[in-house]
Amino acid sequence: MIAADGLLGPAWAGTAADEATADPAVLRALLDAEAALARAQNRPGLAGEIASAGDGLVAAHSGGNPVIPLVGALPEGAHDGATSQDVLDTALMLVAARTRRLILADLAATAGTLEALAREHRDTPMPGRTLTQHAVPTTFGLKAAGWRSLVLDAHERLATVTLPAQLGAAGGTLATLSVPLMERFAREVGLAAPVLPWHVLRTPIADLAGALAFCCGALGKIAADVLVLSRTEVGEVAEGAGGGSSAMPHKSNPVRATLIAACARQAPALAATLYGSMAAEDERPAGAWHAEWEPLRALLRLAGGAAAHARDLTGGLQVRPARMRENLSLTGGLIVAERVMAELARTIGAKAARELLENASREAARSRMPLRQAMESAGLGPAVFDPTGYPGAAGELVDRALDRPLKEIADVELPR
Amino acid sequence: MIAADGLLGPAWAGTAADEATADPAVLRALLDAEAALARAQNRPGLAGEIASAGDGLVAAHSGGNPVIPLVGALPEGAHDGATSQDVLDTALMLVAARTRRLILADLAATAGTLEALAREHRDTPMPGRTLTQHAVPTTFGLKAAGWRSLVLDAHERLATVTLPAQLGAAGGTLATLSVPLMERFAREVGLAAPVLPWHVLRTPIADLAGALAFCCGALGKIAADVLVLSRTEVGEVAEGAGGGSSAMPHKSNPVRATLIAACARQAPALAATLYGSMAAEDERPAGAWHAEWEPLRALLRLAGGAAAHARDLTGGLQVRPARMRENLSLTGGLIVAERVMAELARTIGAKAARELLENASREAARSRMPLRQAMESAGLGPAVFDPTGYPGAAGELVDRALDRPLKEIADVELPR
Amino acid sequence: MIAADGLLGPAWAGTAADEATADPAVLRALLDAEAALARAQNRPGLAGEIASAGDGLVAAHSGGNPVIPLVGALPEGAHDGATSQDVLDTALMLVAARTRRLILADLAATAGTLEALAREHRDTPMPGRTLTQHAVPTTFGLKAAGWRSLVLDAHERLATVTLPAQLGAAGGTLATLSVPLMERFAREVGLAAPVLPWHVLRTPIADLAGALAFCCGALGKIAADVLVLSRTEVGEVAEGAGGGSSAMPHKSNPVRATLIAACARQAPALAATLYGSMAAEDERPAGAWHAEWEPLRALLRLAGGAAAHARDLTGGLQVRPARMRENLSLTGGLIVAERVMAELARTIGAKAARELLENASREAARSRMPLRQAMESAGLGPAVFDPTGYPGAAGELVDRALDRPLKEIADVELPR
Amino acid sequence: MIAADGLLGPAWAGTAADEATADPAVLRALLDAEAALARAQNRPGLAGEIASAGDGLVAAHSGGNPVIPLVGALPEGAHDGATSQDVLDTALMLVAARTRRLILADLAATAGTLEALAREHRDTPMPGRTLTQHAVPTTFGLKAAGWRSLVLDAHERLATVTLPAQLGAAGGTLATLSVPLMERFAREVGLAAPVLPWHVLRTPIADLAGALAFCCGALGKIAADVLVLSRTEVGEVAEGAGGGSSAMPHKSNPVRATLIAACARQAPALAATLYGSMAAEDERPAGAWHAEWEPLRALLRLAGGAAAHARDLTGGLQVRPARMRENLSLTGGLIVAERVMAELARTIGAKAARELLENASREAARSRMPLRQAMESAGLGPAVFDPTGYPGAAGELVDRALDRPLKEIADVELPR
Repeated sequence: MIAADGLLGPAWAGTAADEATADPAVLRALLDAEAALARAQNRPGLAGEIASAGDGLVAAHSGGNPVIPLVGALPEGAHDGATSQDVLDTALMLVAARTRRLILADLAATAGTLEALAREHRDTPMPGRTLTQHAVPTTFGLKAAGWRSLVLDAHERLATVTLPAQLGAAGGTLATLSVPLMERFAREVGLAAPVLPWHVLRTPIADLAGALAFCCGALGKIAADVLVLSRTEVGEVAEGAGGGSSAMPHKSNPVRATLIAACARQAPALAATLYGSMAAEDERPAGAWHAEWEPLRALLRLAGGAAAHARDLTGGLQVRPARMRENLSLTGGLIVAERVMAELARTIGAKAARELLENASREAARSRMPLRQAMESAGLGPAVFDPTGYPGAAGELVDRALDRPLKEIADVELPR
Repeated sequence: MIAADGLLGPAWAGTAADEATADPAVLRALLDAEAALARAQNRPGLAGEIASAGDGLVAAHSGGNPVIPLVGALPEGAHDGATSQDVLDTALMLVAARTRRLILADLAATAGTLEALAREHRDTPMPGRTLTQHAVPTTFGLKAAGWRSLVLDAHERLATVTLPAQLGAAGGTLATLSVPLMERFAREVGLAAPVLPWHVLRTPIADLAGALAFCCGALGKIAADVLVLSRTEVGEVAEGAGGGSSAMPHKSNPVRATLIAACARQAPALAATLYGSMAAEDERPAGAWHAEWEPLRALLRLAGGAAAHARDLTGGLQVRPARMRENLSLTGGLIVAERVMAELARTIGAKAARELLENASREAARSRMPLRQAMESAGLGPAVFDPTGYPGAAGELVDRALDRPLKEIADVELPR
Repeated sequence: MIAADGLLGPAWAGTAADEATADPAVLRALLDAEAALARAQNRPGLAGEIASAGDGLVAAHSGGNPVIPLVGALPEGAHDGATSQDVLDTALMLVAARTRRLILADLAATAGTLEALAREHRDTPMPGRTLTQHAVPTTFGLKAAGWRSLVLDAHERLATVTLPAQLGAAGGTLATLSVPLMERFAREVGLAAPVLPWHVLRTPIADLAGALAFCCGALGKIAADVLVLSRTEVGEVAEGAGGGSSAMPHKSNPVRATLIAACARQAPALAATLYGSMAAEDERPAGAWHAEWEPLRALLRLAGGAAAHARDLTGGLQVRPARMRENLSLTGGLIVAERVMAELARTIGAKAARELLENASREAARSRMPLRQAMESAGLGPAVFDPTGYPGAAGELVDRALDRPLKEIADVELPR
Repeated sequence: MIAADGLLGPAWAGTAADEATADPAVLRALLDAEAALARAQNRPGLAGEIASAGDGLVAAHSGGNPVIPLVGALPEGAHDGATSQDVLDTALMLVAARTRRLILADLAATAGTLEALAREHRDTPMPGRTLTQHAVPTTFGLKAAGWRSLVLDAHERLATVTLPAQLGAAGGTLATLSVPLMERFAREVGLAAPVLPWHVLRTPIADLAGALAFCCGALGKIAADVLVLSRTEVGEVAEGAGGGSSAMPHKSNPVRATLIAACARQAPALAATLYGSMAAEDERPAGAWHAEWEPLRALLRLAGGAAAHARDLTGGLQVRPARMRENLSLTGGLIVAERVMAELARTIGAKAARELLENASREAARSRMPLRQAMESAGLGPAVFDPTGYPGAAGELVDRALDRPLKEIADVELPR
């Protein structure tokens, strides 16, 4: 389903996170919060009425937040003792919890695929690149293991954010309500029970901001690499099913990586707005709270979209070891210059080795001849110049990385 | 009308800017761009078909942008020679141009109201406050004139952004198209003609980002002041019709100022994302372009919402000169300590005057007695301590500020 | 000590965090990293030479990072097998670790002071304010307990960030180095041992970004409240020793709160840049890595400055219960309208109660008479209108909040 | 000269902008402002004393801004009637004006170099790339002309920012000062005269923020392209003198492009903080003003560094037309598939042409054979498949772009 307003958000439109964050889902969460409050107040009949009251509801605005008009549409007695913020904060935590479940599943699946890729390509040599230039050989397995490591980090950070219910009444003192009611409410709505009402202690929002920005950044690293490796001139990987072009029939674009990259570019600024809203004056700030709602939803969508695309991207990724080997040869041995220098240094000392190699490197680059040829006089064997035989500890590092398990998130920690 | 997805955006939902930026408006702009291209290519029949083709269109996504699926729904021959980006960039400029018209009108109206307020209260004394403390007297007229000055700045910056059509074909060379066609296309679609295709020269987007963030910041200053002056303890202004509260029947919240403040908090980060997308590699970047669409729409909405609320806020603002006078007396004359010191310095020198005054100020603050009483021995007349008689050049500054006219924006500069 | 370049950074200049992050401290950390590498390679003599080599060093730049020229000044054999990024990343983790120790100490001290304030003022009534308006009564104890809760959150988030050494050689494969050496290096330098080289897996940087932005935001909430409560018209708290003014001898500005607020405004954007650098292409990105160094240092400074000022601010805070009581009376009882309505509702029903109260509230506000007087006919006793008798569960919430201990951070977790 | 604190800022350390923004330069600007005020007050002797007073000054902090302690060190009578903000805002405008002069010169030189490159390579064919894939041919001349166009845009935006002096006294009313004095002060200090004191009307700061972020973004586009084109596999351009590597003797890194890219990544967030500070409450905000100083200086440095590096980068850029031609052939003709399709469409219609070409493209890509071979049966001549013969209107667009002159900035507009 493509929810409304997704026309300019191809990174998330049509994903499950889209549906979980669209207005109807927010409205349902608002009603879920109101109904849970009624249940916590031992009014099951009222709770039922609230649930059904939502059917004909149309979002409206007055008073500056979406709860005030909603309350007008609820049966009498609903919302008793609560304030708008109690209901909206709780509803947004529900929306976050439901969207998080989707994101975590996509991250787990992505980690699984990356584990298989890392295992399969544990020893597949490819050029390591630094500052756009071939540096030393690495392996695709190590790259995939690194990606997986970031995905596990994202999974952990997102899974461990505490998403509490909010109940504090008009000024956070619970006024006509009570601490036990606050705890019952949390239980009924299926969220963590807060120690204190957090209407102006915005830890949950800030933690979500950080975790979601992290998630987009982690997947953004994968996308950044795929975009480089997919370049026409590089060709070491390709997306399983590239995107078409309206003007160029032959093109097969790395569309998923592009969309993930777009998510990674948008997320940090939205997180910044949310961190900025922590400095919330009084018992309800005039602006800082209101500035949270859209950036939070946008972040959930971006992380949700990025995770869904990452799952597909890694699932369908075509890896081309032959092309990697071709590229390894592009510099005629310069990519293992470091090893050549180390070998030389044993016989002629570090300083002389460095000088000799720098000259030969320049010569080789200028005349586009292999380094080995430019250094013929040095008397080193061909193995020293073989770019596929210098993996360092890549294989061992892959093994270390894969020893780290995906932490299972017990269902009890993740509310509905 | 409240468009979809406005539930969490009370700052703009239901405003004219909402309607002008929602998915249906974007879709219409996409079709307007396609039809203008057909007209520029001398195919009026095709242009007509395109316009009517839109009726049954549902937004869809494939290939990573909203144009690719759209093209599939257009009559044959449409979109000829153009690339997705030509159509989407042009459509977003149309959306921006249409929303800008609304924002400029609201800014102009706001400036008009502020002019009247500044004139009316040219000499209405009130406390000037720095770092939250009473500093020296100022006038409400000067405050309103300053607000107007910022609104005029915003109006100018937004009105002078050039919004060009985009046509460059697949790689920005115009390929099978031509420079004259590019110019005809711009004319047909009602936007400025570009010197160069700007598919990766994102000046229009960056300029819009800056102007829209400026607009939100300028209105944010007004909101920040209104929020301080509305505080229960200050009470010098009030919104005409404050917002209600779901829990507190007596409250009359400065809701419009709150929503404008929320806009001002969100806009800078979105502008940052857009400035960041200027560094767009190649002839179409993989991510930087895609990262522009949602932040640009969000910025248009925030500026549109803030401008609409600012018009209402200033239009209905209640100013309370009596309360201002009361507050001027709160510090018992300390608010004119600067003048008292200057007066003293004439007779006993600057250094001695400062010392005497510092001691008296501390004494007055400690014992909550008027400064005049604490300085009785200094023999200064009562006029020196009168907080309403120390406006500085406030009146003259108001006159200077009001001499600056609102620059009329000729219709020809603003496309449909 | 005020380090160079602190002229425009009064929020942190002259604090311990300033010294811990200034160029000399970074240079020392670079040399510490180089020396630790030599020790890990079983070359203690070389390590000693490196340490003394730093004496005459002047920072220089070539090659785009500060390590390349540094290596030229080191004794031969130093830096063997490592790459610039290994040394710089490790050095920045050392700088972060050393600055973190300072910040955590200030946060712990602040939490202690706030605990005492919360205990002392557990039942001190004050106005609760929402959207700038008096809403319902709260207590200063609950406010202080909330502040402390945020400070504990900040302490936990910052203390639990893992700060690992980095060693990966030119492309992250360890090349001529080894996994055991990587672990020895971490031990020698006093940082956590990484599972994988993290040259392009920027989890530590992103985690620091989030934790430091959180820290500034948490302290920013305290500052925001202090700024409101210090207002001339509010006067419920004052900084122990306010800042002077060059023009106004009587002023006592809330300078520390102002500087903390300035930190909270700057931190989120810097964190955004760091989250953005996670999307780092290749084995070393061309720009994303280089974009981390200054924002990371700036964030450390802001958090360090904010924490130092928060410690002083809370340590010297003057709390004025009498002024709080005065302010509670400002609305003539409207601040407990919620309770009045609840009381009324028992006898005449919720709907009628709300209507009656809304009318009386408007009447009271209009004629500036106490609510009790405007509702004389309703026959409610005076206790119902007493603003000091409606604390809700504030006291109980304070107790809950204070039950949460500051988590002691074992020294072993925090490297030198 | 490398000023203090530049160790982590290789993008700007050691440039002229570094010296123009370092603490000694700020201190000099502060004294320049104080001296100009004395001159405006017809006290030339005092002005002379102020200038010499600076010699022994050490920056210090108290009262939350750098002016308060400075005033204590000035001769008596200095600073008369002014407030700290008058002096600091004016000083920062001076620093901005002086740094702007440097940046504009570097931008003008860069534009000149790019003009020559565009002229020289007006018809040098190279692959146009979209979403990382070869799309259609373009020319290096068009790329260089586009870069120049952005540089001219940056030059215009930065040159047209109005940098006014600030004088308003304690609360912006000019109090004991006067409007004529404000104008004399502006003249004396060499900055624009403001209509109103702008202590809380932050248009100059916001305008600078936008222009500097634009500048970094514009140069960031050049850097992004250079980084792609420098890739080992692409090799179409190279920096004149690449950066070395501490581990890899053969590497020649695109260091300048890397540093410019790092600037472009940091600038937007800093600009966001400055736009955020527009919402400044009262006559001097508690935090928003203080949050401007460091981001503004950082932005000036980043733009200054990026402009200096861009001048060098473009001045020394090696362009490799032969490599461009080689790369044009990489796809075996697919890069001109668009033209092939257009040619085919003339005879067999658009739909059939598209189908035929899509099949042939897939076939050619799969078997790595030239498109021409895969389409042998279609009977098209070899010229249709020639990638160097499909420049579109590139040449004409270059000419149009070069017709646009660099706007000379009259010296009078740019204060010392």
